[in-house]
Order: sequence, then structure tokens, then C-alpha cells
Amino acid sequence: MPGTVEDVDVPSASDVLRRCRELVRPALVDAVGRLHPWTGEMAAYALGWSDTAGTPEPGGSEGKGVRQALAVLGAEAVGADAACAVPGAVAVELVHTFSLLHDDVMDADALRRRRPAVWKAYGTGPAVLAGDALLARAVTGLAGTPGDHAAAAVRRLCDALNDLVAGQAEDLRFEHRPWDGPGAVGPEEYRSMAEGKTGALLGCALALGAVLGGAPEPTVAALDRAGRHLGLAFQAVDDILGIWGDPATTGKPVHADLHRGKKTHPVLAALAGGSRAARELGTLLASSRPTDAAAERVASLVEEAGGRAATRGEARRHLDAARDALRATPLTRTAARELDVLFAGLTDRVM
Amino acid sequence: MPGTVEDVDVPSASDVLRRCRELVRPALVDAVGRLHPWTGEMAAYALGWSDTAGTPEPGGSEGKGVRQALAVLGAEAVGADAACAVPGAVAVELVHTFSLLHDDVMDADALRRRRPAVWKAYGTGPAVLAGDALLARAVTGLAGTPGDHAAAAVRRLCDALNDLVAGQAEDLRFEHRPWDGPGAVGPEEYRSMAEGKTGALLGCALALGAVLGGAPEPTVAALDRAGRHLGLAFQAVDDILGIWGDPATTGKPVHADLHRGKKTHPVLAALAGGSRAARELGTLLASSRPTDAAAERVASLVEEAGGRAATRGEARRHLDAARDALRATPLTRTAARELDVLFAGLTDRVM
Repeated sequence: MPGTVEDVDVPSASDVLRRCRELVRPALVDAVGRLHPWTGEMAAYALGWSDTAGTPEPGGSEGKGVRQALAVLGAEAVGADAACAVPGAVAVELVHTFSLLHDDVMDADALRRRRPAVWKAYGTGPAVLAGDALLARAVTGLAGTPGDHAAAAVRRLCDALNDLVAGQAEDLRFEHRPWDGPGAVGPEEYRSMAEGKTGALLGCALALGAVLGGAPEPTVAALDRAGRHLGLAFQAVDDILGIWGDPATTGKPVHADLHRGKKTHPVLAALAGGSRAARELGTLLASSRPTDAAAERVASLVEEAGGRAATRGEARRHLDAARDALRATPLTRTAARELDVLFAGLTDRVM
Repeated sequence: MPGTVEDVDVPSASDVLRRCRELVRPALVDAVGRLHPWTGEMAAYALGWSDTAGTPEPGGSEGKGVRQALAVLGAEAVGADAACAVPGAVAVELVHTFSLLHDDVMDADALRRRRPAVWKAYGTGPAVLAGDALLARAVTGLAGTPGDHAAAAVRRLCDALNDLVAGQAEDLRFEHRPWDGPGAVGPEEYRSMAEGKTGALLGCALALGAVLGGAPEPTVAALDRAGRHLGLAFQAVDDILGIWGDPATTGKPVHADLHRGKKTHPVLAALAGGSRAARELGTLLASSRPTDAAAERVASLVEEAGGRAATRGEARRHLDAARDALRATPLTRTAARELDVLFAGLTDRVM
């Protein structure tokens, strides 16, 4: 199909992601190459660059590279050269990979992007070690950034790291909380968990690009805020896919979140509705962890009680808030448009 | 017994350690207090401040605090006020605690300082998370140090972190290597592993004190070198205690290292000797992982083949090299003497 003028003007989300991945790739390869060979092999597997035998698997199971793209666009949005964002892009991508490795251990998730998780493929201890190596390398690379912005960038990354770990702590603790009653997880607690677990690093990615691009603090703060809202929208989407997503697309088992008693937005929103379906759902969840058949029923009840619609609404609200934060800030036109396309692309899977 | 003049002049190693712990304690308590409450509880348990119910256990299972003391003495040795070293002291102590938590997961060590390891007490996932939280907090605190030295201090800590993780990777890989023959672990490989695993953070502790105290680079480098040699001496001592140490003192099961096939200096040195005992040892080790009875025999053969004496010699050589590095550097008299006392105190358990 021949492209229209608009097609040529505004690249698609996947075009934007590809351009940024290609820009960041050499520095990311260099960073992984500085690891101990064994942890480097696990890192390359985790990044989807190779299989467990170390054989290259070009593009096969690679992540989209959302965080590195946000760092690049953050710099471009403040009028800086994309190249200055590369150390930040590498750092957030390595931190993201670290968090996937360790989260999969903590959540006992055996699959990641349709392949065995690193702890399944290499063992728990080695996966913990590879995560540590990635985290150390992430901070090291950023701390060694030439120019005047390394210290501020490291402080930003550290703040995000603390939020990320606290969010993961909340998420794990929530699994032991009741679905209903006085000890239940409230909407504010859920939001704070999701902002830490998912929003902090997305916000940090955008902010790092701006910091390394020499932007003033209010601009950096606005980009951080936009990224955090994007993270909340993204987490809502992820929660929907965790219940209704096609395992062939998500790369994870069906109903995984329900089986684990994970406190996700759709279920919490459904229970808060107070309808007949909500009451039945509450009784079913209180009785035990769902079997396969019961998980089907839980998913139906969550939908019937309005949980899916409420979460779609949550995603939309945070996507709007993210866009508002961008619009309220003076940014270069091309990068602002690409960010807009990217934001929409990341959430349209359930809209 | 009444003290002599010399007793008054030169404090004992435990006096030095206590003084430094007391100086650093408020900042360390503050750092742990900034963690998510759950990870903070695990951190307090790991630091020996409380039991698994969160009940304070003052002094019961606390570590000696060697690394925080080295940071404090590093600053004093370059003529700076001890207070300026506190952010560095906190950082190295948190990194040390992080590494104990994660190493115990990787090594499946169930006991630490006579108590269940964090992963045994709280679960593997939570222990991984608590380690991550401690690492993030360590870098954050150091990056937030007031004054001009934060960036250089963070770079130092990061370099040590990378070495630490690489050393742990080597240590784990060595377990899968043969004891003898072409694939055996050579002395240089062992030394590089031990320097990373143990020396890097001890060197970093001393260097950080000096960096935060504003010392010139050659002084910082000399202190780092001294700490690395101390680490190698310390690891040799640890290897001896891992085979012949009294479990009541070490807090670990007897012969733990032998049971796991860990490549330690005494065994490698014994095998390298080529004596009759060395050959019998090689055969015994090649056959399978030792049972309790066989571990006794392995320990005897290692001793007979000169492994214990060789490792004692290794510890002594590195202790001397550490002292030489200190003596070749202009340092304040009191701190240099305290460092000397501390260095000797850390290795005299097997001398």
C-alpha cells in the first residue's frame, strides 16, 4: 500500500523503537561485553540476543526496548543530540533486564518472552548473580558518562531503583493480603505499587535523556511525571493481558496472575463494584487459589463486575495524564510527536 | 590487669572496630530506615540488629563492621575528619550485607553468624529483594554525599561492585571445574577470584574514606591496594577456617567448603605439592563429593600435603604486602597504627 504524506511524516511506534534500538545497540553490546563472560552470556540470553548455548538469535526474543527509546526521545525532546542520551538508555535497559531476572525469581515465573526465564535456564543462583552484574554495570556506565551531568543522572537512576525495589516489595506483600475486608489492598496502595514497579523506571528513562541533554529541572520533572503516568497505563494494560491475554502473544501462561493470587487492578476494581458478580467473585477468591476451571470463572466474573472496563479506563486516564504532562512542557516538535505515537502504541493493545 | 602505657596508647582491634561502629551507627540506622519496611526488617535481621520477629537483639549477631572501620580509618589516615567518611562507611557496609544475602542464596548456605541465613528465614525471593534494596540504598546514599567528592566516590564503589560480582561468578564457576589436570584452577585464577570477591570491597572501603577526605589519587590508590592485599589475606584465613574452623566460632557447618567442592586455597595448594598425600587427595576428590567421614580424611590429607601451611604463608605474605602499601604512603600516625592493629587482628585467628 503506498504511503500517504502523513505516513512519511510520522513514523509508527515500531519505527521509533527500531531507530532507537539501532542507535543504542553498540553501547549496549559494549556494556554487556564488559561483564564477566558467564554473566555476559546470561545477560545476552536475557536480552534475547542468543540462546542458552550462546548462539546468536538475532531479534528472536528481544524486548521492544521501550526504556532506551524513552531516554533517546527525552534528549531529543529537549533539543539535545540523541547521542548524549545513550549512556542513560543503556543504563535503563540494563536496570530493566536486572529487574526482569530478579522478579522472575521472586515471582517463580518460568517463562519470559516465550522462553524459559533465566533462572529456569541457568539456575536461581546464577540468575541472581547475572541480575547483580547488570545492575552494577548500569550504574557504572552512567557514573562514567563524560560531561557535567553524570552525578545528576546517577542520582535520578538511584531514586528510580529505590522506587522500583519498593514497588516490587509491595507487589509481593500484596499476595499475602486478603481480597476483601479491612486488610484488602486499596486503590491508592495499588497505584503506589504500580508507580514504583513500572512507572519509576519509565519516568527515569525520559528524565535521564533530558538530564543528559542539559534540560532545566522543571522540564526533567515533567518528563519524569509523563513517564510515571505512562507506567501506570502500561501496568493497567499488563494486568488486563495477565488475565485475558493470548499466551501466544504475552509469552506467559494463561491466567498466571489469578493462579498466584496477584492483586491486579481488574480484580480489585471488580471487587470494589459491589455487584452480584463482585460478591460471587469475592466468595470464590476467598475460598482458595483458583484451579484452571475456577480461573475461567474468575475471569468471567471480573469482566461481568466491570473490572476489565474499569482497568481500561484507568489505562486511558493515565495515558491522557502522560500526554498532558508532555503538552504542558516546551519540547521539540518531532520528538514530542514520536513520544505521542509511542505512548499510544504501548497501550493500544487493550484499547 | 592494670594497663601499661602501651595499652593506653594503642587500642586493640576490637576497640577500633567498636569506635567506628559507634560513629557510623546513626547513619546506618537512618539508611536502613529509608528502605521499604519489609526489606528494612530483613536488612535489620541480616545486620544482626533484630530477630525474625523484628525484636531488637542488641549486639547478638552483629558483624564486626570491618568495612565501615576501614572507611573511617581511610579518612583519618589522610588527615580528614572521620565524619566525612560516614557516607562511604554506610555504603560499603550495605554493599557487604547485600553480597552476604545474595551469596548465601547462590551458595545455598543455610547458616550465617550462627543464625538461619536470610533466604532460610524469609525465603529466596525476599532475600534477593532485600539484597537489591540494600545495593540500591548503598549507591543512593553515596551519590547524595554533600561536597565535591560524591561522583568520584560512586565511581570507586561501582568499580568494586563489578569486581565483587565477577569474583563471585568465578567462585561459582570454579565449583564445576576439575580439581586436577588441564581444566584445574591455577593459583593466578584463584587469586583473581579472591581479590574480586573479598579484596575489592575492602580496598574500596579504605579508598572511599580517602576519597571523601579529599586525598590525592596516589594515596587513594595505595590504600585501595592495601585493602585488596588485606582481602587476599582475609580470604586465605577464611579458607582455613572453612576447613578447620570450629563451627561454634565460624557459625557455619564443619567442612562446608569441602562438601560443596569449593576450590579453596588450602586444597589447591595441597594438590599442587605433588606428594603422596597430594596424590591420595586428588584421587579422593576426583571420585565424588566427600561424605562426612571422607571430608575428615580430605582435611587430614590437605594438612599433610602442606595445604594449611601454604595458605597460612599466603595470608602472611598478603598481610605484609598490605602493611608495605600503608608504610609507603604518607599517613597520619594514629590512624596508620590503628590500621596496623586492625590488619593483624583480622588475620591472627590462624597465625
